[in-house]
Amino acid sequence: MSQMLDALTPSARSAPESGIVKVFNYGRTREGLIPLWAGEGDKPTPSFIADAASQALAEGKTFYTYQRGMPEVREALAAYFTSLYGRPFSDEDFFLTCGGMQAIQLAVQLIIGEDDEVVVPAPAWPNFEGAILARGGVVNYVPMQFEQEWTLDIDRLFDSCSPKTRAIFINSPSNPTGWTASEAQLRAILEFARAKGIWIIADEIYGRFFYDDALAPSFQTLREPGDRILFVQTFSKNWAMTGWRMGWLQAPPELGQTIENLIQYNTSGVPTFHQPAARVALTDGETFAAGEIARAAAGREIVCNALRGRNDLHFAPPRGAFYLLFGIEGETNSLDTALKLVDEARIGIAPGSAFGPGGEGFLRLCYLRSPDQLSEAMGRLTDWLDRRA
Amino acid sequence: MSQMLDALTPSARSAPESGIVKVFNYGRTREGLIPLWAGEGDKPTPSFIADAASQALAEGKTFYTYQRGMPEVREALAAYFTSLYGRPFSDEDFFLTCGGMQAIQLAVQLIIGEDDEVVVPAPAWPNFEGAILARGGVVNYVPMQFEQEWTLDIDRLFDSCSPKTRAIFINSPSNPTGWTASEAQLRAILEFARAKGIWIIADEIYGRFFYDDALAPSFQTLREPGDRILFVQTFSKNWAMTGWRMGWLQAPPELGQTIENLIQYNTSGVPTFHQPAARVALTDGETFAAGEIARAAAGREIVCNALRGRNDLHFAPPRGAFYLLFGIEGETNSLDTALKLVDEARIGIAPGSAFGPGGEGFLRLCYLRSPDQLSEAMGRLTDWLDRRA
Repeated sequence: MSQMLDALTPSARSAPESGIVKVFNYGRTREGLIPLWAGEGDKPTPSFIADAASQALAEGKTFYTYQRGMPEVREALAAYFTSLYGRPFSDEDFFLTCGGMQAIQLAVQLIIGEDDEVVVPAPAWPNFEGAILARGGVVNYVPMQFEQEWTLDIDRLFDSCSPKTRAIFINSPSNPTGWTASEAQLRAILEFARAKGIWIIADEIYGRFFYDDALAPSFQTLREPGDRILFVQTFSKNWAMTGWRMGWLQAPPELGQTIENLIQYNTSGVPTFHQPAARVALTDGETFAAGEIARAAAGREIVCNALRGRNDLHFAPPRGAFYLLFGIEGETNSLDTALKLVDEARIGIAPGSAFGPGGEGFLRLCYLRSPDQLSEAMGRLTDWLDRRA
Repeated sequence: MSQMLDALTPSARSAPESGIVKVFNYGRTREGLIPLWAGEGDKPTPSFIADAASQALAEGKTFYTYQRGMPEVREALAAYFTSLYGRPFSDEDFFLTCGGMQAIQLAVQLIIGEDDEVVVPAPAWPNFEGAILARGGVVNYVPMQFEQEWTLDIDRLFDSCSPKTRAIFINSPSNPTGWTASEAQLRAILEFARAKGIWIIADEIYGRFFYDDALAPSFQTLREPGDRILFVQTFSKNWAMTGWRMGWLQAPPELGQTIENLIQYNTSGVPTFHQPAARVALTDGETFAAGEIARAAAGREIVCNALRGRNDLHFAPPRGAFYLLFGIEGETNSLDTALKLVDEARIGIAPGSAFGPGGEGFLRLCYLRSPDQLSEAMGRLTDWLDRRA
């Protein structure tokens, strides 16, 4: 068996098992478990989106199509962002992908070679690291601080960059911490990257799940032509489409042919009949997206109120995204704790150890769910904490 | 602009533009053009398959699912192959992918590192090369011979392998030549690979489109546990599902966790609501598949009969797959010829130059289409040839 594994490339072997999936697989079929482990809500895709795909299927839209995505979807993306950020975007900026994950993989393929380094603030969603390791690259984690809230020391971020650093990965609002960069921080990072000729990979997929304002600060309002920024994005969160595996890469249009070529040799594009559904999400999806954002805000209140004031817990109310990262006094092995919570409290929670340095000792729960279910889950959690005490 | 491209990895830049897509993009919107350039038929996905996806959408099957594919689909793949080849297969052998292309990409990620070499008989579908170059690997083409028909000199294949060779890519029946390995050749290749510790990447996606027998000779009947064979496969051809981007990798089960990890960091799996459709294609799709195979056989007759006996053409009736690769006397630049055929004959044909060494001077047409349309297309082609003379 090990002989077969030895016959693989080192980079393939180094792609780690997801620590989230480990707990997911442990508890996936448990009757009555409330799953808060994954980055998805409890609502299926709304029917006005799903029906557009079914209609396309019925019309026989099942042939090959454009590698970059159909022009009308890329135009809808440009219109959506133009309206969101109040400055012009072009269809040439956008490339449809099979999920935000494929957008990350393409970004990594574009700019990271063997032994190239990427600086990543941590805790961080483990799939950034996975994509970089699978490519033979190196992840240089910069630990964030947790005291009253999660903070990133920008000077420490810059000091972590070396001549081998090809990119800085900025996920803001952050999964799992909820940390959100200020505009001043984003500006400083962009100026640093310009000066050093370093790329920025910007994951702003939670940009509308922000609790201080309508939109989180964004590189979108700061960037200028020629800036080396790759935005990785997804339909999953705003429009409840996690199971569709559909997202996009936003990149300098000069890279268009190269990106098309890489898409060709990855998956050759996004399923044809998905694309009318993607378009309708962008053009007609505002009411639904606003509802999801309100639902997350309400979920955040429920979860924070239920856990606030307990002296066996530590956490900060997250500024963005839809996760609560919290620590339990005396629970130092978060994977063990997560497995116990499956068995003993019938709730599914992701272990902080899955999120890189600084994650151990914490647990992550997703609060984009119905108020009733969240209240029930928090009841189960606090009961378990009380029984444990 | 070139500064932006210079900031990319060499392997990203080296992934070539597909020569097929080039002609496709040139003629995509031409009114009345008969498209024979792509590897797809003219039938949309049959409704019993499409409806299964629509039903899953209506039932809200839009959440994350298993990275390897749902157990019931992997079980259906095992049952399908067990029935096809009369020997046992296990669900543990199979991993759903976003298209046959992603299966190839995964195979390359698993076993090809930077500067590692893959030996590929040519002419060959250009996406093998694209996937290898995008990974930083090296393609070593072994030219096939065309006289009465396409042949592969097995000793030349073996002589082309060096200590840097990590894999042999065998596409049989072949796109674009229709060449099909004999069982004796497959056995010799497998024994050579075993002796040298080399991997085989087997693309047998046209295995049922074979005109001498019900099934083309296959590594499936020869392989033993421990053999280093990765099969790349697709739902596209048997069940008219090109636009779905859905396929599978068949690999030694010892690699299961590693493959799951790579899928996680590529696309995180296949869209959830596709999977009931994949299952129904496998369990209820035999009548449709048999119809497609008969349609290809009829198309092959039409095309060969229309072109046979002309002294300005050279080709051999293909033994498998659903392409005719033919040369036109005096037409030495196949890309130019393909563009002329769009403009002057209103038919879309892929240039042989897109298929690596030995392809230039040939053109590839797909004959998995309605008899009427093929007759019309052959009329247009022969008229064009006659006008030209």
